[in-house]
Amino acid sequence: MAVTSTSAPSKDKLLLLLSGKPRPEWIPRIESKFPKLEVCWVDADPGNTGPSKEAEVWQGVTILVTYRPPPAELMSSVRFVQLVSAGADMWAQHEVYKDEKVIFCTANGCHPPQIAEWVIGAWLSFQHHFARYAANMQKGHWEAPYESTVQDSTECRMGILGYGAIGRQCARVANAMGMEIYAYTRSERVTAAQRKDDSYCVPGTGDPDGLLPTKWFHGASKESINAFLGQDLDILVVCAPLTTETRGIISREQFEILSKKKTFLANVGRGPHIDQEALIEALETGKIRGAALDVTDPEPLPSEHPLWKAPNLLITPHVSWQTTNVYARIMDILETNLERLDKGEKPINMVNRELHY
Amino acid sequence: MAVTSTSAPSKDKLLLLLSGKPRPEWIPRIESKFPKLEVCWVDADPGNTGPSKEAEVWQGVTILVTYRPPPAELMSSVRFVQLVSAGADMWAQHEVYKDEKVIFCTANGCHPPQIAEWVIGAWLSFQHHFARYAANMQKGHWEAPYESTVQDSTECRMGILGYGAIGRQCARVANAMGMEIYAYTRSERVTAAQRKDDSYCVPGTGDPDGLLPTKWFHGASKESINAFLGQDLDILVVCAPLTTETRGIISREQFEILSKKKTFLANVGRGPHIDQEALIEALETGKIRGAALDVTDPEPLPSEHPLWKAPNLLITPHVSWQTTNVYARIMDILETNLERLDKGEKPINMVNRELHY
Ligand SMILES: NC(=O)c1ccc[n+]([C@@H]2O[C@H](COP(=O)([O-])OP(=O)(O)OC[C@H]3O[C@@H](n4cnc5c(N)ncnc54)[C@H](OP(=O)(O)O)[C@@H]3O)[C@@H](O)[C@H]2O)c1
Ligand SMILES: NC(=O)c1ccc[n+]([C@@H]2O[C@H](COP(=O)([O-])OP(=O)(O)OC[C@H]3O[C@@H](n4cnc5c(N)ncnc54)[C@H](OP(=O)(O)O)[C@@H]3O)[C@@H](O)[C@H]2O)c1
Repeated sequence: MAVTSTSAPSKDKLLLLLSGKPRPEWIPRIESKFPKLEVCWVDADPGNTGPSKEAEVWQGVTILVTYRPPPAELMSSVRFVQLVSAGADMWAQHEVYKDEKVIFCTANGCHPPQIAEWVIGAWLSFQHHFARYAANMQKGHWEAPYESTVQDSTECRMGILGYGAIGRQCARVANAMGMEIYAYTRSERVTAAQRKDDSYCVPGTGDPDGLLPTKWFHGASKESINAFLGQDLDILVVCAPLTTETRGIISREQFEILSKKKTFLANVGRGPHIDQEALIEALETGKIRGAALDVTDPEPLPSEHPLWKAPNLLITPHVSWQTTNVYARIMDILETNLERLDKGEKPINMVNRELHY
Repeated sequence: MAVTSTSAPSKDKLLLLLSGKPRPEWIPRIESKFPKLEVCWVDADPGNTGPSKEAEVWQGVTILVTYRPPPAELMSSVRFVQLVSAGADMWAQHEVYKDEKVIFCTANGCHPPQIAEWVIGAWLSFQHHFARYAANMQKGHWEAPYESTVQDSTECRMGILGYGAIGRQCARVANAMGMEIYAYTRSERVTAAQRKDDSYCVPGTGDPDGLLPTKWFHGASKESINAFLGQDLDILVVCAPLTTETRGIISREQFEILSKKKTFLANVGRGPHIDQEALIEALETGKIRGAALDVTDPEPLPSEHPLWKAPNLLITPHVSWQTTNVYARIMDILETNLERLDKGEKPINMVNRELHY
């Protein structure tokens, strides 16, 4: 195995710098697949590991798995970094990251199953009036079945602003419920090859070939976004990265467009995508039927913030990425990349050193 | 068109006895597809239609679409009845129903999309702690993201007790989320032909060929049910019909079996499937992680009933069947059956005159 063709150590050393303990099968599996690789796991929680042991363990490390950036001097022999996060923002100023010979890969694709569940769960709770029934339970009140109507998803359309890893798994579940999918990406994707997404995907999930959307929109201009929002969407999922282009991408003008269908808004991207004052107004005046936010601006949201009291809204504290399965997926990505490096192939999920994701 | 081979009127008359008004396209579409058919719609809500007009409209009706059973004397020329309900229980003592020459078909298959949404929505709300976050919103409290953990569905197993129309759509959505499906039917289904379900299915939903389950259990005995419940299910969906065999099918002994995995229980069948005292105990002692009931025993559930106060439980007042799309689906079944009658083929969704569904 050689992590770069120029500086290949005769024997590689892998350091997993992660919180907690590995599942019993992980390290033996890597060792049996890569017998020449030395593997060690260090609990990244500083309470558990003393600095002397740490310095020792760093010697000769060529492959690193980590969340936080360690001091550059410890990483002198590292040639490949597998991140546990979906982005590399934290690394932008790091000396090792600036060295383009060191390969960085993200954990992109570890989050879509649980984030799509969050989106679909929020949508269904809203459409099926679960909050109202929970309130009725407090009073022991059995509402007459005809007091509300429900629109199921079979004739609904989901618009996905950012048809990447997360968006594609939202599409898969929505499609299984009978929804129509409209996709949006920054770049144009017309051919089958363009529609593919080669980043990591939990087997049996997502839409890696991009086959589910019945319409596909693209562009970075406000006009192209607005044209997309005008497509009679029942639900809009915002799951684009936060960039100067996407900051405030959903504001007063856009809520006006969405008011035609009273589109439900789900934001799992970043808080600043949404103009929150405009959102509160849209909810209070019934311009949109409801919304769910896993991300806000700022975070934590101060307790006196008016967003807490807006009607038909669910707020969760940036938790939609949570799952007990995330490390197992990172091991999956790591094994794939170790194999690829071994064969001299390009790893998956390589960081774009300009965009940091 | 001839609804039976023996007594074919030269010209058929179709009466749609339904609440409200038809969508503008429905009647013209039937008329253009079946030009020899006389079609009329009568609002079944008695406030809107006088009895004189009613007697007149019944003359010569050979095909009837209805929810409630009309007086037998009005139905003297009726040869085909398309019900708007999933079962035919209300008809058991009706003179026309007793005449086996009159064909009865159900609306079976109109409900799975919305009922599956209800099941998946209840499961996801529970797994992703939405009720807790809604309570936090009242206090303006942003919980630290690590205060709870989430298990996403990718490594979960759904057991479906009653792999019929509803169960198959639950399976489709759960499968899209990465879940494994274990099916249960009363009759054994080993061959591809046996695994098929020929009743009505909303296009693009369900599992009409029975391809999704990785294991398939069957039987009517308590032993076979218990063996199924012991399969480490993360969620159990009860969607079998209520019969003498299924009454109290989930009781103390079964909650004991389910306690191994703390299985989440979703009941969309009928209230008496579950021993409610045993359920309350299982929830209070943490034997199961949670439950969601759309049906209870009795209904309405009296306001002082202890079920209202059981922990980790969602109760809704028998509303999971609700959708604005149900009549459109009945029109779909009706058109299919009119075509089949026209060609002398067997209609879909024919009632079993012994089981009344
Ligand atoms: N809530 C959470 O806990 C959580 C967890 C993980 C991620 N996230 C957020 O979710 C975002 C998406 O994650 P992912 O893994 O799905 O990323 P991804 O696979 O990189 O997909 C991002 C998608 O957004 C599109 N996009 C980029 N710029 C855009 C623009 N200006 N307008 C519209 N669409 C644009 C991209 O299109 P092109 O491919 O054409 O550029 C791509 O389809 C992340 O950037 C992060 O902010 C949140
Ligand atoms: N909550 C609501 O609003 C609502 C609405 C509609 C229906 N429902 C309820 O849901 C039930 C299912 O509806 P569906 O349309 O899915 O019916 P379906 O298509 O007839 O399916 C029923 C399934 O239950 C199985 N089954 C029958 N007896 C059983 C037993 N003793 N033990 C285990 N499984 C058994 C059947 O197996 P076999 O095919 O081998 O017999 C079949 O797979 C209805 O009977 C009704 O009670 C509730």
